Amino acid sequence: MMDIQQLDKKYVLPTYARADVEFVSGKNARLTDANGKEYIDFTSGIAVVSVGHGNERLTNALCEQTKKLIHMSNLYYTAPQALAAKKIVEASGYDMKCFFGNSGAEANEGAIKIARKYGEKDGVPKRYKIITLDHSFHGRTITTVKATGQESMHNYFGPFPDGFVYAKDIDEVESLLDDHTVAVMIELVQGEGGVQPQDKQKVQELVKLLQSKDILVIVDEVQTGVYRTGKFLASNLYEIEPDIISLAKGVGGGVPVGVVMTSKKDIFSPGDHGSTFGGNFLSTTAVCEVLDILNEYDASGALSDGIAYFDAALEKFYNNHTNLFTAKVGLGMMCGLRVKDSETLSAIIKNAQENGVMVLKAGRNTLRFLPPLTITKEEIDEGFKALESAVSKL
Amino acid sequence: MMDIQQLDKKYVLPTYARADVEFVSGKNARLTDANGKEYIDFTSGIAVVSVGHGNERLTNALCEQTKKLIHMSNLYYTAPQALAAKKIVEASGYDMKCFFGNSGAEANEGAIKIARKYGEKDGVPKRYKIITLDHSFHGRTITTVKATGQESMHNYFGPFPDGFVYAKDIDEVESLLDDHTVAVMIELVQGEGGVQPQDKQKVQELVKLLQSKDILVIVDEVQTGVYRTGKFLASNLYEIEPDIISLAKGVGGGVPVGVVMTSKKDIFSPGDHGSTFGGNFLSTTAVCEVLDILNEYDASGALSDGIAYFDAALEKFYNNHTNLFTAKVGLGMMCGLRVKDSETLSAIIKNAQENGVMVLKAGRNTLRFLPPLTITKEEIDEGFKALESAVSKL
Ligand SMILES: Cc1ncc(COP(=O)(O)O)c(C=O)c1O
Ligand SMILES: Cc1ncc(COP(=O)(O)O)c(C=O)c1O
Repeated sequence: MMDIQQLDKKYVLPTYARADVEFVSGKNARLTDANGKEYIDFTSGIAVVSVGHGNERLTNALCEQTKKLIHMSNLYYTAPQALAAKKIVEASGYDMKCFFGNSGAEANEGAIKIARKYGEKDGVPKRYKIITLDHSFHGRTITTVKATGQESMHNYFGPFPDGFVYAKDIDEVESLLDDHTVAVMIELVQGEGGVQPQDKQKVQELVKLLQSKDILVIVDEVQTGVYRTGKFLASNLYEIEPDIISLAKGVGGGVPVGVVMTSKKDIFSPGDHGSTFGGNFLSTTAVCEVLDILNEYDASGALSDGIAYFDAALEKFYNNHTNLFTAKVGLGMMCGLRVKDSETLSAIIKNAQENGVMVLKAGRNTLRFLPPLTITKEEIDEGFKALESAVSKL
Repeated sequence: MMDIQQLDKKYVLPTYARADVEFVSGKNARLTDANGKEYIDFTSGIAVVSVGHGNERLTNALCEQTKKLIHMSNLYYTAPQALAAKKIVEASGYDMKCFFGNSGAEANEGAIKIARKYGEKDGVPKRYKIITLDHSFHGRTITTVKATGQESMHNYFGPFPDGFVYAKDIDEVESLLDDHTVAVMIELVQGEGGVQPQDKQKVQELVKLLQSKDILVIVDEVQTGVYRTGKFLASNLYEIEPDIISLAKGVGGGVPVGVVMTSKKDIFSPGDHGSTFGGNFLSTTAVCEVLDILNEYDASGALSDGIAYFDAALEKFYNNHTNLFTAKVGLGMMCGLRVKDSETLSAIIKNAQENGVMVLKAGRNTLRFLPPLTITKEEIDEGFKALESAVSKL
């Protein structure tokens, strides 16, 4: 048989520039590749594997559910879907309802549909413009590509839908508002754009301004949500009450699931939106178990301990290498180091892999860390030890 | 604790008009609800649970994989993704490559992106129009809603992307072609639109015409694919060679996964498209096992036996009730009966549920049957017996 890399090149469209490694198993923040080599995982599959690889509780819950029912249909009631929605809403502290899709892009499509329907009063498309930020990332459907404030992504796939307006930053939003603006969509910490947290006070002032004008605040928490920044939602940390929130990535612990939640509980009528798989037994069983695990982990103090420990290790690593790094950025388990140039960044990522620790790139020059939220102190120590070896070889 | 229906109403956005039933477990084409009542499933979760509920092989494969790795990232190689792509391409008989997303809508977004990029030569958007058919259904993202040829769905969520043109039927497509047309997208058997198979010869002629003009043929096989019509793809049954094919629903046996495959193997470069979850360990392990199961089931003759048996039972049921039904339609395990009026249709579906068999509606007046492909003769007999009781009470 051909090896996996050859098979992949032969049968999979080349949309990813894959690194030369094939993982076969994992345990919490440890990974093993096809050659038996071990790694510490500071990526969690880009903030997805929130409860760690091979988490026993999640594994058991999925096995049990799979034997009973994986999927039926949204034409009927699905108990774990209702329970997952309850757990999400309760953890958020907001008075909202949920819709389940299958990805971050689908969650944001739902968010945009909610905003657009909110803006269209009595059948007339009165308000439809949505302001997003430069360097944002909202997904890969044609509409979420257009919502993404990166010029370079707006090629090839047009005509794109009109109605997206880009603000340089939070400060510029106010000057772009007009009678057709229905919503502003932001990430509180830009993930793909380079691990860039927004200023809390500025966000609070913007939210106040927008809500006083009946303009909806959409927070894309696909990457920041589900305890990534230390609180259940970054919106909780920023002490705001958005009108619409999207979730995906960590909420299913690796099972494909996206969620949009909103305080506009009556915005949709039956038939306005839907999804075949969305909210099925498998994916919402995952959500229920992941939230139970992480709610406990948070309540026990283990999450904030882990965050503090990771932060201290990162701070130390940063201080050891001020020749390479220009700043330490991020919040909670979503953090990064600005690297002096992008060649050095690529070299660090490559060396890190060779030395047994997986790290990520974000934006042009950020070394990004998104470990499983349940990473242990031993795993953190081991990972940074490997990183020290990696940079010593630059 | 509140019961599930109350929880659902409290925490889930009301996008579905759910029937009053909550399933808790299943075995092949048998379902059990929360009250212990049993049902025969002629829906398979709308063509999703292709290998039946609680399929032991699928269950075991998913449990084993879940213990190892559910998800890592497309930045690295994922063995089951490469293997799933190989199995799909080989089963199709076409010379294509695959991209993995998480739903039918995402598969069609991929299809549209491929077509649009194909039409944009040297950076100039030369050809971008995509013709779709009236009564089609392509998904719930803003772009796939617009691609869907149903006026009633084009409300609320605009501005929609331009470039979609609707043909009344296959015959009308030719008259709508212009210099900006890049693709035609069709379902070979319209599913949501009412279980409406296209005429084979007309399809073949259309494909010939389009391909002679370098216009791409996109076949949406989200519902028809993966042996639903008796062949791996409806495109195989129609003996055509599409340029782009989308799959979802049955391909993962219930695990959320969508696939777009194309003969334009070099159309995408790294960065052109992507998905966080798409193609992950869990979902592509499901695809591999589902295809192994169904390839064997087909090769053994069991699939065509099952189809013939179901068809005969449906024919008999139809002939017994010509006072209710005006036509028998469909192909393979995707079939329906046209009901004389929509009130009678609703009454049949309701009575069927009461009598222990789940059936679906399609379009305005079609009673739809989409059983698990592995349904047994006993289950078929039992289901039609329950249906006889259901209609006897009209
Ligand atoms: C903030 C944000 N929004 C949306 C998305 C899209 O999510 P998905 O890849 O699951 O569609 C991402 C993915 O990286 C993201 O980081
Ligand atoms: C032909 C067809 N295409 C696309 C879709 C959308 O699939 P999904 O609901 O998985 O997004 C459907 C769903 O019913 C379908 O039948």
